[in-house]
Amino acid sequence: MHLVYLNGDYVPKSSAKISVFDRGLLFSDAVYEVISVIDGRLIDMERHVARLERSLGELSIDAASDWTAISQKLVAENDLEEGLIYLQVSRGVMDERDYRWPAPETPPTIFAFAQDRTLVANPMADRGMRIITRPDMRWQRCDIKTTQLLYASLMKMEAASAGVDDVWMTQGDLVTEGTSQNAHIITQDGLLVSHQLDRRVLPGVTRIETLAQAKSLGLTIEERAFSIEEARNAKEAFVSSSTLLIMPVVEIDGHRIGDGQPGQCTDKIRQKYLAAVQGAGSTRT
Amino acid sequence: MHLVYLNGDYVPKSSAKISVFDRGLLFSDAVYEVISVIDGRLIDMERHVARLERSLGELSIDAASDWTAISQKLVAENDLEEGLIYLQVSRGVMDERDYRWPAPETPPTIFAFAQDRTLVANPMADRGMRIITRPDMRWQRCDIKTTQLLYASLMKMEAASAGVDDVWMTQGDLVTEGTSQNAHIITQDGLLVSHQLDRRVLPGVTRIETLAQAKSLGLTIEERAFSIEEARNAKEAFVSSSTLLIMPVVEIDGHRIGDGQPGQCTDKIRQKYLAAVQGAGSTRT
Repeated sequence: MHLVYLNGDYVPKSSAKISVFDRGLLFSDAVYEVISVIDGRLIDMERHVARLERSLGELSIDAASDWTAISQKLVAENDLEEGLIYLQVSRGVMDERDYRWPAPETPPTIFAFAQDRTLVANPMADRGMRIITRPDMRWQRCDIKTTQLLYASLMKMEAASAGVDDVWMTQGDLVTEGTSQNAHIITQDGLLVSHQLDRRVLPGVTRIETLAQAKSLGLTIEERAFSIEEARNAKEAFVSSSTLLIMPVVEIDGHRIGDGQPGQCTDKIRQKYLAAVQGAGSTRT
Repeated sequence: MHLVYLNGDYVPKSSAKISVFDRGLLFSDAVYEVISVIDGRLIDMERHVARLERSLGELSIDAASDWTAISQKLVAENDLEEGLIYLQVSRGVMDERDYRWPAPETPPTIFAFAQDRTLVANPMADRGMRIITRPDMRWQRCDIKTTQLLYASLMKMEAASAGVDDVWMTQGDLVTEGTSQNAHIITQDGLLVSHQLDRRVLPGVTRIETLAQAKSLGLTIEERAFSIEEARNAKEAFVSSSTLLIMPVVEIDGHRIGDGQPGQCTDKIRQKYLAAVQGAGSTRT
């Protein structure tokens, strides 16, 4: 993955450098998207573009570009079959450090790169994820996909040092979401419960398709926060994200979910999701 | 201010560029310090170094450098008489984007630059600041000086669009701190009330000297959160920060503080602070 997009040019990774006066670096004044690539195709690109534009709008960052063309070119030039495209936009470079925004004509900093990753044949789908819960200490606008990811990063490390796969974050006894995934459970009654879209969670692109596939399987969807207790007692639990796709959770805080194996409904949703994104009707880039 | 320090070198501003794979840029995995410079001298450098090392320690970022020598050289090379040194350390550059930390031997990214600014003769000290209050929506480890400053930046813009100077942030009806300053009030009874040091506020370097000077003037210090209501009814209000030093607040949410003029105690604290930092005993760099 040698080629990086930077402000209009495609440059070697080693040359992809930006000023230390970039606001993304000094103020975390930047938003991003991660788009999965399967069989050389960008998955759900339109929804990612829509979310990126919403994030930019929420922060009044004025940046327009052909996000799809950039992503497609990175896929092609890097011969990417499976993995992801990362796309970041910051409010641009300041002349001097200042909390206040620079002049409106300041160009945004835009960069993007490709990464190889196994998505479809991820072995975690067979064994399931083991997760722990920790307090959600992030800022209160988690619906905007900003680069303020320090807490999520710290929680990934906490999971690693606890010997588990990831963390679900909680406010009081309610689960908000995973460090980089939306969290879902299926109750003993067969209800799919998923946190409502509000400022506490990211409006996941994969979440949309996940809930649609679940509905088509006859599941009833309840969009509300669920408690840690509910999650532990759930029949199934799983996450959705652009790079994990749909991934079963088999353990929460040491409590086995169901029989400790990936849930049957979860597996069906994952298979339906994969069939949809790998569908013959889609056009290769 | 043409010369920037970057990973061991002093380079022209236009060459001060870092990889887009820097964790500071992708994960806000970075901490910083702002050190004021008055009469060509670094103010309170030892305390800034101590706080930087605490921030690094809290995030387990392994970075050692002669922070004072770097700062002194930037002052000298840029002929800086009055202004600030900005110093940032991130966990370094990744080979591929990953929330988890890179190998421990990964070198941190360290950069620093100088900025001219009028600190002592700041005209705001004569007229006083007008501030508004807004909910504190930042993450819950504000005691660590990270670059996750997006909310503070948004609040600076909110203040500007409201035609005032800055924002004090609140949790419930209690004031935590300013966007980039510690907040203090002096009650009608002559008590100086300042938020206790906990995870809600930055342990201000200037706050230390501020409280010491206030004490030497005979004021009793109460370290606890104060309410918006208490602040509005205070005799005096002010902020402390490395670049504002001690700065009076004359209006909160449209309510005049005292007689609407900078408070007398505040002014005395500011004068004592200035005398201390400009003292003949200090050595020029």
